[in-house]
Amino acid sequence: MRRKKVLQFSKAPDGKQGLRLIAQLVRSTLHAQRSTLLGLGIACPGSVDEEGVVLADSPNLIGWKGTNIKQPLEKIFKIPVLIDNDANLAAWGEKCWGVGKNARNLIMLTLGTGIGGGIIINNQIYRGSHFYAGEIGHMKILPDGPKCSCGQKGCLEALASAPAIVQRYNTKTLKRYNVNTARDVFDKASGGDKIACEVVQETAHYLGISLASLINIFDPDVIIIGGGIAKAGNILFKPLRKVVRKNIMPHSLRRPAILPARLGEDAGLLGAAGLVLNP
Amino acid sequence: MRRKKVLQFSKAPDGKQGLRLIAQLVRSTLHAQRSTLLGLGIACPGSVDEEGVVLADSPNLIGWKGTNIKQPLEKIFKIPVLIDNDANLAAWGEKCWGVGKNARNLIMLTLGTGIGGGIIINNQIYRGSHFYAGEIGHMKILPDGPKCSCGQKGCLEALASAPAIVQRYNTKTLKRYNVNTARDVFDKASGGDKIACEVVQETAHYLGISLASLINIFDPDVIIIGGGIAKAGNILFKPLRKVVRKNIMPHSLRRPAILPARLGEDAGLLGAAGLVLNP
Repeated sequence: MRRKKVLQFSKAPDGKQGLRLIAQLVRSTLHAQRSTLLGLGIACPGSVDEEGVVLADSPNLIGWKGTNIKQPLEKIFKIPVLIDNDANLAAWGEKCWGVGKNARNLIMLTLGTGIGGGIIINNQIYRGSHFYAGEIGHMKILPDGPKCSCGQKGCLEALASAPAIVQRYNTKTLKRYNVNTARDVFDKASGGDKIACEVVQETAHYLGISLASLINIFDPDVIIIGGGIAKAGNILFKPLRKVVRKNIMPHSLRRPAILPARLGEDAGLLGAAGLVLNP
Repeated sequence: MRRKKVLQFSKAPDGKQGLRLIAQLVRSTLHAQRSTLLGLGIACPGSVDEEGVVLADSPNLIGWKGTNIKQPLEKIFKIPVLIDNDANLAAWGEKCWGVGKNARNLIMLTLGTGIGGGIIINNQIYRGSHFYAGEIGHMKILPDGPKCSCGQKGCLEALASAPAIVQRYNTKTLKRYNVNTARDVFDKASGGDKIACEVVQETAHYLGISLASLINIFDPDVIIIGGGIAKAGNILFKPLRKVVRKNIMPHSLRRPAILPARLGEDAGLLGAAGLVLNP
């Protein structure tokens, strides 16, 4: 049985406080359920090394740099604690229980406020040489394109993330029909709004170009698109697949399936559980 | 001791004839050297599957599609035959004996008439799900850029291969100072020719953009640049490293070394030998 509790972290000023909150949550959950704990799986919104140390501050993890998340929790609960980056674990979740079940090599993109990437190679999470692999949102797509959160220009994230979609629509309409979410833009496109259709088409173009490059480089079994934007369905996936087909090498035609994620916003959590069950 | 014999394949109309020529060459070499053969390593200028079957015709391998290269040679010589794509094996060569010796994850680009790519992950050649991985020359760099040999537009190969460099120079000079090789362009740039300098700068830009994306995606230990163009030395590598530094994510700064290959045009052959010695 799957149960979920949500704890707002906004009141944790740093890693030390945050760890205390996590320990409390685990303790209270255990107490309520009288269950045995096999292990703790943790999806972390930032890069962590093999010791379980947070490598850098990130927008959702301010004040955690250098915090060892693994060791203190193992000490308290005397069980294995497994931890990884949330984008890696979203891919791992889809591999363990989602649309990536039969894939040996897969790439998952999570499209939301940012664009996260997770790479599975030979049935294992690929972390890179310094635990920074998978920054697919920061592939360069449009030289001298719009500024990205990372400080560079023309990254995929600056072109196809939710805020990028919203901003492009609002700019094109001169803010006459201000929208707040990417979903609004997709809804308007479904309703026939011309400018919204144009923005969706552009998004499919930028995303499709980057998927084509990824396919040419990785030759994966499947590419999985998750995050809020993936819910847009066919209005995004149809033009997206068309752009990919147009831009991959002829021998790759129709090879890797491009599929919406199955596990929704829990992909990372389920991936963390998967890490405990299939380490 | 290393000895090399060269056999022109132009007279082999297809795979069957080609195999016969290879067998003759091996036999005569063995005879001359009275040596024992540990195994045969073969670097193939096209994709091959795990059975040793050529997957498609390619510019240097016309009429070979479907030819099993491994089995007949194993039958004749009664030794293990190991075969892989030449770009993969160039990377493997540099990993076994070249500048990639200490790298667990590395990417090698061979810049010549085309742009080949080889990827080593966790100390193994990464071949992808259908033996087509590593087509780094076909990353999309410039949407609607010049036409590429693969039929698409704006691929790295169409911007930074030797013919692309030559063509850009000749176009910019309105063919007044027609050059024939990329080396001519680099020589002219070294001599201060303004247009040649511009072309080299552009080449470094396109190549640097793609390396930055690869670093953000793979987080490798090292990126190796081989092929004729790599011999250009600092006039290419200095601006190239600058472009990469400017375009990778801040946390990656100065992480992966970008190094010229050490093994020259024999990287693929040495990689094939490496495959026999470290299969």
